[in-house]
Amino acid sequence: MRIGVIGYGYWGPNLVRNFLEVSECNVVAVSDLSEDRLRLVRVRYPAIETTTDCLALLSRPDIDAVAIATPVSTHYDLALRALDAGKHVFLTKPLTQTAEQGERLVAEAARRKLVLHVDHTFVYTPAVRKIREIVDSGELGELYYYDSVRVNLGLFQPDVNVIWDLAAHDLSIMSYIHPSAPIAVSATGMSHVPNKPANIGFLTLFFANNVIAHLHVNWLAPVKLRRTLIGGSRKMILYDDLEPSEKIKVYDKGITVSNGKESLYKTLIGYRTGDMWAPQLEITEALQVEAHHFLDCVSTGKRSLTDGRAGLTVVRILEAATQSMSQHGHPVELEREGTAAT
Amino acid sequence: MRIGVIGYGYWGPNLVRNFLEVSECNVVAVSDLSEDRLRLVRVRYPAIETTTDCLALLSRPDIDAVAIATPVSTHYDLALRALDAGKHVFLTKPLTQTAEQGERLVAEAARRKLVLHVDHTFVYTPAVRKIREIVDSGELGELYYYDSVRVNLGLFQPDVNVIWDLAAHDLSIMSYIHPSAPIAVSATGMSHVPNKPANIGFLTLFFANNVIAHLHVNWLAPVKLRRTLIGGSRKMILYDDLEPSEKIKVYDKGITVSNGKESLYKTLIGYRTGDMWAPQLEITEALQVEAHHFLDCVSTGKRSLTDGRAGLTVVRILEAATQSMSQHGHPVELEREGTAAT
Amino acid sequence: MRIGVIGYGYWGPNLVRNFLEVSECNVVAVSDLSEDRLRLVRVRYPAIETTTDCLALLSRPDIDAVAIATPVSTHYDLALRALDAGKHVFLTKPLTQTAEQGERLVAEAARRKLVLHVDHTFVYTPAVRKIREIVDSGELGELYYYDSVRVNLGLFQPDVNVIWDLAAHDLSIMSYIHPSAPIAVSATGMSHVPNKPANIGFLTLFFANNVIAHLHVNWLAPVKLRRTLIGGSRKMILYDDLEPSEKIKVYDKGITVSNGKESLYKTLIGYRTGDMWAPQLEITEALQVEAHHFLDCVSTGKRSLTDGRAGLTVVRILEAATQSMSQHGHPVELEREGTAAT
Amino acid sequence: MRIGVIGYGYWGPNLVRNFLEVSECNVVAVSDLSEDRLRLVRVRYPAIETTTDCLALLSRPDIDAVAIATPVSTHYDLALRALDAGKHVFLTKPLTQTAEQGERLVAEAARRKLVLHVDHTFVYTPAVRKIREIVDSGELGELYYYDSVRVNLGLFQPDVNVIWDLAAHDLSIMSYIHPSAPIAVSATGMSHVPNKPANIGFLTLFFANNVIAHLHVNWLAPVKLRRTLIGGSRKMILYDDLEPSEKIKVYDKGITVSNGKESLYKTLIGYRTGDMWAPQLEITEALQVEAHHFLDCVSTGKRSLTDGRAGLTVVRILEAATQSMSQHGHPVELEREGTAAT
Repeated sequence: MRIGVIGYGYWGPNLVRNFLEVSECNVVAVSDLSEDRLRLVRVRYPAIETTTDCLALLSRPDIDAVAIATPVSTHYDLALRALDAGKHVFLTKPLTQTAEQGERLVAEAARRKLVLHVDHTFVYTPAVRKIREIVDSGELGELYYYDSVRVNLGLFQPDVNVIWDLAAHDLSIMSYIHPSAPIAVSATGMSHVPNKPANIGFLTLFFANNVIAHLHVNWLAPVKLRRTLIGGSRKMILYDDLEPSEKIKVYDKGITVSNGKESLYKTLIGYRTGDMWAPQLEITEALQVEAHHFLDCVSTGKRSLTDGRAGLTVVRILEAATQSMSQHGHPVELEREGTAAT
Repeated sequence: MRIGVIGYGYWGPNLVRNFLEVSECNVVAVSDLSEDRLRLVRVRYPAIETTTDCLALLSRPDIDAVAIATPVSTHYDLALRALDAGKHVFLTKPLTQTAEQGERLVAEAARRKLVLHVDHTFVYTPAVRKIREIVDSGELGELYYYDSVRVNLGLFQPDVNVIWDLAAHDLSIMSYIHPSAPIAVSATGMSHVPNKPANIGFLTLFFANNVIAHLHVNWLAPVKLRRTLIGGSRKMILYDDLEPSEKIKVYDKGITVSNGKESLYKTLIGYRTGDMWAPQLEITEALQVEAHHFLDCVSTGKRSLTDGRAGLTVVRILEAATQSMSQHGHPVELEREGTAAT
Repeated sequence: MRIGVIGYGYWGPNLVRNFLEVSECNVVAVSDLSEDRLRLVRVRYPAIETTTDCLALLSRPDIDAVAIATPVSTHYDLALRALDAGKHVFLTKPLTQTAEQGERLVAEAARRKLVLHVDHTFVYTPAVRKIREIVDSGELGELYYYDSVRVNLGLFQPDVNVIWDLAAHDLSIMSYIHPSAPIAVSATGMSHVPNKPANIGFLTLFFANNVIAHLHVNWLAPVKLRRTLIGGSRKMILYDDLEPSEKIKVYDKGITVSNGKESLYKTLIGYRTGDMWAPQLEITEALQVEAHHFLDCVSTGKRSLTDGRAGLTVVRILEAATQSMSQHGHPVELEREGTAAT
Repeated sequence: MRIGVIGYGYWGPNLVRNFLEVSECNVVAVSDLSEDRLRLVRVRYPAIETTTDCLALLSRPDIDAVAIATPVSTHYDLALRALDAGKHVFLTKPLTQTAEQGERLVAEAARRKLVLHVDHTFVYTPAVRKIREIVDSGELGELYYYDSVRVNLGLFQPDVNVIWDLAAHDLSIMSYIHPSAPIAVSATGMSHVPNKPANIGFLTLFFANNVIAHLHVNWLAPVKLRRTLIGGSRKMILYDDLEPSEKIKVYDKGITVSNGKESLYKTLIGYRTGDMWAPQLEITEALQVEAHHFLDCVSTGKRSLTDGRAGLTVVRILEAATQSMSQHGHPVELEREGTAAT
């Protein structure tokens, strides 16, 4: 597979490095608007061609797939042109700025039988895969909540608010480990910079069966935190992505609910605390696993784990959350997946 | 001052111990419904009288003040009887179950010129006092947000939901360090035990001037967390109450906003990171400071820092938040303090 | 059992409080040289008699046992007088200032059939008991090393150097979890205050079978650390006494040693990393368990787990280590237990 | 400057990457005994030539300098050949296996006026440079101790014991921040693998003026720790290299020593605790700074901060420590620098 990479800013260098390490892949060209960034490419990889014109890159017949690592506002246009040029597309998250754009990309990729893969990197980390394995095994019991804090002094993005940047990660993780779709969202947030999108945001997602999720994101925090609690009726997980080796801790803790004999109406709650267990995780780089998966989908026609449809699910929630945020938390119902497309 | 303590469950023993250490105070009697708990009092403090009848305690003429450490649902009734018996009242938080009850207690205490003090303990900790000092000094610049996480595997309370238990702490801290009143609240939450109040809750408070506060509470978390971020335009605070010695860290971090010359409409955001500073804190026990403050108010007629009015402010927000929670985050406006009483 | 407590400084209050909580015990009197300290006793426990004359306390016929919590330099004299007065003795660590004094106390207690118990508190903690259980189960494989860091800005003691204060804890823990005796010790250290004993110290203990122990103590450290690594051929323990709930972590990590086929002389080392497991610990207070154990020994004549002989083992090592320290680490062989007494 | 790199195992890739990023440098060739490792070089950097024959690399006239990243046992021979071929040498630590070898390399480099630079990487980190700055400013007061713990489940090295691998780092840091030479060393350690060098080691270094240093290293620890305490009479530093952002904390803590008036002989010790301060550190990569420094030394003839002489100081201490270790801690005096060479 011969790949072109569009955008060599913050994330692009990781894409180039990782596709190069896949033996069946070759990165043949990189485009970026900045000559300074392209000079960096040439110093590191003299064999890669560089250009400031991404359309020239897209028109090369020797390129099979493109990886796009540019601001969200350019995703729809670039990805559509790439599909139209017959290229498979690897697109950084979030898929697009609107669900409508996302639907068109999904339809176009389907029509042309091309792979449209969204780079929801966390889904490919050993930690998230282990969490899914634990959840699937039933070890947690009935799922109660997903509660994430993802804050740091981050890169303010000019074209999207903080939830499109940071909460997008949690939405992709959640839909991977708990595939059921949320039915409504309530979100709040605030911008502290005049004329800029919100830099702090809080989302609550409601699911069937009393499952609740809360996402807590902030570009203006003094410390970096990446901490998720996943509570179940039997066990609970603490997932701290900043821990060097014990990223996942499974606590055998919870409550036991019983009805007292004194009264039919009285519920007694007991506390249960047991051992903690931190499973050993593989030490593969997520992007490496993901690059292999993308190559596999391109070669075999297999559906990507984080395809356009998965990306669209995330965009729909972000769109509804942004609407709720503008109404100070007024809840917004989510359409069932597919309904809108009809 | 001669004190009687009503309730010797979880918090009562701390009240007894701390009032005993104040040299001008004497704890003369303790009441509790459980003979087992009273036996503990007699082993530890043979000089204190014990009774299962709190009304007997309230009717003793040799008692000047009572400290009440019983479930919230009993607060209104017990405090009212205590005031009617001419006793000064030290009441565990939250003040009452409804704002209406709170207003009546406040009015009654005022009419009888008795001290009605709410045990918002955190306001008396060296950490919170130092935070107020830092905020007051202007060192943080303009206040942007208050963001607290307060979770653990906690004592499920039968009569109130988790925000009445845990968020009450943050509301009292906030109104101490940032006395301006919130204008609206959006809250979400969930109960995972049939017929029980919510055990997980999330509150957003909106203030004038783009200040936003978020409180995050949970009785069903596998780990204990007590972590508050307070962001300002110039500096930011991380307050971690579980840190043994460095509870407060002040970060000289933030963003600088400037308008680029290329375009009148383009705002440029720069990042600023500087030193971190952790002020040395006193090592006094909060309840000890508070016991002295209560004694001082009783002796001199001085207004308590956390008097009934302060307790009522907290109850009004909790009431509105509970209403919003039942409507999945639909925002509820808060009446200006005093408006409802008219 | 009726107990008298000598010394109400730093540790004495814990002894009084814990013996009071044992229902079969009664604390009848406390002595201290300071009237201020005794006033504290009277405020907290009006029923306890106080005196500045410890000999008066020792001569009371209604006292069965004494708990001594005074500086080390007074241990020998006070404990000997107590034994001579027919009292069972509970003595804070270390037993005495010299092994010779310790031997005399052990002999005197044996002659009079009285309990001589040394307050090696850590031996009674749930954490240390769990470690012993894990070591005994063989789960760690062959024991390789014990490596402890115990530092803080501590109370400089006037009569002993830092290893007598802090390393005494580790020596008692070690001899509990790994009862084999060390054969030699090398120690280094330094005093940074003129005419004062060393405030920083490092001990290496050599055992048979390539087991090695290292103790690292410091009264002049900016942070408090209590961290012990216990390495075995199969698993390893991290014991951090300052962790609120996960004090013990068992790591399934290690190396595998095999001989390569290329050469008879070449040893290949492989690394093995597996899960981590943190066992749930009971939440009993060590001193409470210890008070019951002491009472049990007094009533039944049973040998205390930390009797005079156990205390003497610790003192012998401390004495040898102090000698080695004065010779800049020159190793000092340890006599087999009992040899010196011959 | 045209560079050849010998050894592309664990550390070599970092050298290649960093020298490539220096614009005035070019990496022209890499040698390694393993074809597999060389294949990796070719995938990543198609422009770099590869060879399994390091002598061929050394004989290329178009190479000005070589960076050697091979096992210690090969250092003397390879570096000598490189100097003889007229190349400047960048050598991973430790310099050589013996002080005698080190002296010869130093002499040879001096004779040929070539740069002999030892890769004591930590000296080039922002953290260590900031520590030196703080120490030099006098802020700590009189230096009391340097106390380092550096343990992990490490790569067992076949040719040197653990102190040559891990303690070498601390010795280079120490001689940078506290240039005075130690006068004696006492070391202990143990091997837990038959016929292998010690995998756990403890070193005490004695300096003039009651300064003491202790190094604590272990290849067989379940967790990774990199923690150094530096104590002074006025302030103390905690340097934790694993902290993502607050690697250095300066504590305004200590003791105050005064002579009591009651007695001429009695010394009173008071405790002083103040604020903690964590200076902001630059986020440059140490190896990048070091590559520039090496280039600078080669171009201008300037003496490297970590030249052969600095590397030799470290080797002399390691040699003495290994001797002490074989004698169970018996102290070994260190010759004054230069004395042995006479």
